[in-house]
Amino acid sequence: MDNNESRNGLPRRRVSRQIQIAGVKVGGGAPVSVQSMTNTDTRDAQATINQIKELEEYGCEIIRVAVPDMQAAQALKIIKKGIKIPLIADIHFDHRLALAALANGVDGLRLNPGNIREAEKIKQVVLLAKDRSVPIRIGLNAGSLPKTNNPRLSVSTRMVKAALEQVELLESLDFNLIKISLKAFDVPTTIDAYKKMAARVDYPLHVGITESGTPRTGLVRSSVGIGTLLYLGIGDTIRVSLTAHPREEVVAGYEILKSLNLREHGPTLVSCPTCGRTEVNFIPMVDEICARLAKVEKPLKVAVMGCAVNGPGEAMDADVGVACGKGKGVIFRKGEQVKVVPEAEIIRELMAEVERM
Amino acid sequence: MDNNESRNGLPRRRVSRQIQIAGVKVGGGAPVSVQSMTNTDTRDAQATINQIKELEEYGCEIIRVAVPDMQAAQALKIIKKGIKIPLIADIHFDHRLALAALANGVDGLRLNPGNIREAEKIKQVVLLAKDRSVPIRIGLNAGSLPKTNNPRLSVSTRMVKAALEQVELLESLDFNLIKISLKAFDVPTTIDAYKKMAARVDYPLHVGITESGTPRTGLVRSSVGIGTLLYLGIGDTIRVSLTAHPREEVVAGYEILKSLNLREHGPTLVSCPTCGRTEVNFIPMVDEICARLAKVEKPLKVAVMGCAVNGPGEAMDADVGVACGKGKGVIFRKGEQVKVVPEAEIIRELMAEVERM
Repeated sequence: MDNNESRNGLPRRRVSRQIQIAGVKVGGGAPVSVQSMTNTDTRDAQATINQIKELEEYGCEIIRVAVPDMQAAQALKIIKKGIKIPLIADIHFDHRLALAALANGVDGLRLNPGNIREAEKIKQVVLLAKDRSVPIRIGLNAGSLPKTNNPRLSVSTRMVKAALEQVELLESLDFNLIKISLKAFDVPTTIDAYKKMAARVDYPLHVGITESGTPRTGLVRSSVGIGTLLYLGIGDTIRVSLTAHPREEVVAGYEILKSLNLREHGPTLVSCPTCGRTEVNFIPMVDEICARLAKVEKPLKVAVMGCAVNGPGEAMDADVGVACGKGKGVIFRKGEQVKVVPEAEIIRELMAEVERM
Repeated sequence: MDNNESRNGLPRRRVSRQIQIAGVKVGGGAPVSVQSMTNTDTRDAQATINQIKELEEYGCEIIRVAVPDMQAAQALKIIKKGIKIPLIADIHFDHRLALAALANGVDGLRLNPGNIREAEKIKQVVLLAKDRSVPIRIGLNAGSLPKTNNPRLSVSTRMVKAALEQVELLESLDFNLIKISLKAFDVPTTIDAYKKMAARVDYPLHVGITESGTPRTGLVRSSVGIGTLLYLGIGDTIRVSLTAHPREEVVAGYEILKSLNLREHGPTLVSCPTCGRTEVNFIPMVDEICARLAKVEKPLKVAVMGCAVNGPGEAMDADVGVACGKGKGVIFRKGEQVKVVPEAEIIRELMAEVERM
């Protein structure tokens, strides 16, 4: 976990209260967890189980499924039995779906304050969740802000206000297994909302940017938004939203956490952008190394560098590295030069060093 | 430009001194510019010109080329004539290459304090640059920190110290057309170095994360690092380093700036991650819309949403939007519902609305 606070200048993380979603701790100094959401039809329990099992392999730690109708709510019972990670039911509009999801054994609920407005209905859900010690995420979304909300306030203030009303309702029922999210498409609005909420309550925060788009743009928007918040010490669990297969969300989630030294997860590849100094066929070489490293589980830092300018420095700083020159590569292990090999043998020799670690 | 400071809570930008690289203003409140670096062999002037012309089409505003030898330095004269955007020569080790680059008409120099250490040689370069009013970037890289530097200090402090020594040398020659970069692979180290430097001098800062890797991981690392710095108000020009074709760097650069409302650049697509509530064939539809929007130059916000939960809210907030339901889509324009169309006609009707804008 993050022990780079003083060494790397990462500001201190916000101290949040800890909740537990089945076996996964969220907040209170627990590792920032990575979650995703299925995009199968939840009513098709087997397809949903299959997708969740694939996501488990990629390291997904909490999974959420949409529950649009009672048939989907019933399928949760089967899904829960087929998977290992905690299951969260995503509920909109109809509180009866939340009651059914709880009865079917889900580990968490996500409710949207924008669309279940009657206190009496929410109360029924909260009392059953309390009875079963199931946490509830108050999952506010700028796209579905309550209409009664004061339109003269800024969007972020309205989001915080709407979420806090729900927090107060849950607290009035003596329920405090609360997690909060405040997602918008606009990144500064999202950051602002989380900062304001972080200053108001100590509940753990689920951080994400909503509707952020296809991988090319969504990866950037999510990384900027989630990354900035995590840098500022805000965020206890994250979900990257992408218009893509959810496995891409899990991979991206870990990359964000790795970039801030908040989690380790498999190898980290350091590779240069190539330039007019590169004298080997570099991009295909890096792609091949990248593909081979995908099967390595140990958190190693592997540097593949195209020239002699920054090459030796970065390669020496990595667990295993290569600095390429004209048609050859110098292999490094833990800062020591191991050997010089011709270009055709770079991949094999580098991977041999990786295997040795 | 950024007019969201109060509305969206983006902190005030650092006030920097302005320099000008040919026609492009950097710092002093100028728009944050997007730059890239060629990966052709600079000695092949035509190949380099062709790549730069492609990058110009993607919106690249400043281009840098590696100058590894005298033949490359001579090619700069031809390259300069074949392109529109400012040309920067990237020089390491040999100050004579910098002198030749200046003589051949480059608009900027990048020097690495880690590898041209003799003050007398740097002085020759600086005096010629001063004579021609050509700015110099002091481009420090954690992978090539001077070895004489005190190893007991943190990496970010050593980076700042090494760059400041170079700044002082340039200032002692009455040269102040200075830009500074402090890149590391480690994101918190990079952020820390820029924050420290921002507090010490008012020169414009060129921001980037070095050796950040292939698009999948490099996009995340660059977005987290550059995005966090820009959010904190630091950064006057940016370069995303990716082990990929440089056009990907330009596209990513604009996406980072757009995500923080610092620049507009073509359409912005809002699209949901899909879930068990989606009742149309969504991902291929979004991919197709994304491809068609690539040809639109106007900065429009286009929302493509899969269901009725956040769909209408996001679609109404966009310039043009669609909220999908079961086998159909509701088209919105500027917050007004325009029509309901069957699934097969969504793309055509949405693009027709985009054309109308």
